[in-house]
Amino acid sequence: MPVIGVFDSGFGGLTVLRELRRVLPAANYLYFGDTAHLPYGAKSVHTVAKYAVSAAHFLEQHGIEMLVVACNTATALALEDIRAAVRVPVVGVIEPGAQRAAAISKTKKAVVVATEATVASHAYRRALEHLGMEATEKACPLFVPLVEEGWVEHPVTEEVAHIYMDELFQDGARDADVLVLGCTHYPLLRPLLRRVVPQSVEIVDSAESTAARVVEMLGKNSAGPAGELCCYATDSVEKFRRLGGKFLGCPIENIELVDIEK
Amino acid sequence: MPVIGVFDSGFGGLTVLRELRRVLPAANYLYFGDTAHLPYGAKSVHTVAKYAVSAAHFLEQHGIEMLVVACNTATALALEDIRAAVRVPVVGVIEPGAQRAAAISKTKKAVVVATEATVASHAYRRALEHLGMEATEKACPLFVPLVEEGWVEHPVTEEVAHIYMDELFQDGARDADVLVLGCTHYPLLRPLLRRVVPQSVEIVDSAESTAARVVEMLGKNSAGPAGELCCYATDSVEKFRRLGGKFLGCPIENIELVDIEK
Repeated sequence: MPVIGVFDSGFGGLTVLRELRRVLPAANYLYFGDTAHLPYGAKSVHTVAKYAVSAAHFLEQHGIEMLVVACNTATALALEDIRAAVRVPVVGVIEPGAQRAAAISKTKKAVVVATEATVASHAYRRALEHLGMEATEKACPLFVPLVEEGWVEHPVTEEVAHIYMDELFQDGARDADVLVLGCTHYPLLRPLLRRVVPQSVEIVDSAESTAARVVEMLGKNSAGPAGELCCYATDSVEKFRRLGGKFLGCPIENIELVDIEK
Repeated sequence: MPVIGVFDSGFGGLTVLRELRRVLPAANYLYFGDTAHLPYGAKSVHTVAKYAVSAAHFLEQHGIEMLVVACNTATALALEDIRAAVRVPVVGVIEPGAQRAAAISKTKKAVVVATEATVASHAYRRALEHLGMEATEKACPLFVPLVEEGWVEHPVTEEVAHIYMDELFQDGARDADVLVLGCTHYPLLRPLLRRVVPQSVEIVDSAESTAARVVEMLGKNSAGPAGELCCYATDSVEKFRRLGGKFLGCPIENIELVDIEK
């Protein structure tokens, strides 16, 4: 069974891991959450690339055969740096999300919601344009803290979502028929966003698309007994246990504290 | 004229610097914003102490004669570590805020709003109890991102403030007559909070109290031509310039990018 490394700045990537474990339950997983440096969403290219490459090296030294960069910001800002730094195949979350959007869109217009850094990189717009799509991107910096506050079905979150989505769909994105969730925290807001965005708009969750891509790359869907999961965090293990479970959808047992700033 | 070092995880400490420049305009200031690692508010003691000590060393090497730790989380989690690491006098923001609260409270009951990490440390409760006060602490994790979104007078922020404050004042803090703003971002929400908290409650801003303490320690209020300000940031200088101006209340000119992770 393959050992798959999954990397994120914190907990959000656990939504990608959750999908991976659903479609590839027999694989073994090493999850690296760089919680000492989160969030990446408002940091610069240079800083994000430095942290991401350190994490990739750490996972490679621990025997992974494939690396999933389960963080939109790290994919947007540092995918090429990460690919250059390790020998194993590297899958990001942006390409699979963009391809799924292109596959289902009829109007060939998409909207992308993401962190400030992902939007500023225009990585989604480039990936979508390459597939013949037109893209409008919008940063939604309050979504991550609202999810981390646990307010995934809260009236305040719905109001914030209305403000962001109204701006988005009134600003020239009226014909868009796909909304790409360009941040791994956002799948937790999917039910709420489903109520807020126009019914004609399909929601694409890059966690699902990325898991599907990994299955494709590995060939057949692996069967067998459930594989193992070990998590590494660069900050408080207790907090990782407490918050992480919400994202993974089940309790997390093996978590080790690591320091990659040496 | 003295050279005063001011340190924070990001931009919030600029509210303390603003007060310092108001009461001590002739001093020279070096401001260090550890923006590559912000926010400190949700990180562990170990991680915050490591970053804070690195920043303190950097400022000491640049010739400061006094260090103001203008970050509640760093003060709560790492003040003793910082004091042990440098030779210059070190002033935190918690003690001055607590003393001001104790001086004006009649009921001897205070409420403190702060980040998750500051609340978990109970540094304010200890400081206030030491002064004969009873304290109720509450983490308000959405305030920082709301301020950074620029929504300081936004209906959503007012709704969030109502939710937090109602919980606080209904949960056994009914007789409190002082609200301590235990995070350097919160002074920007002071006008909004003034409308939300009961009129019988006075708001204490630790930026003001800390500046007053520095004046006390230095002796007389310095006169003379305005001193110089140089800022150091560990992440994007452009972002520091853009966001920092809001906190300082005027444009920021000299900003240098530094890397303390060597």
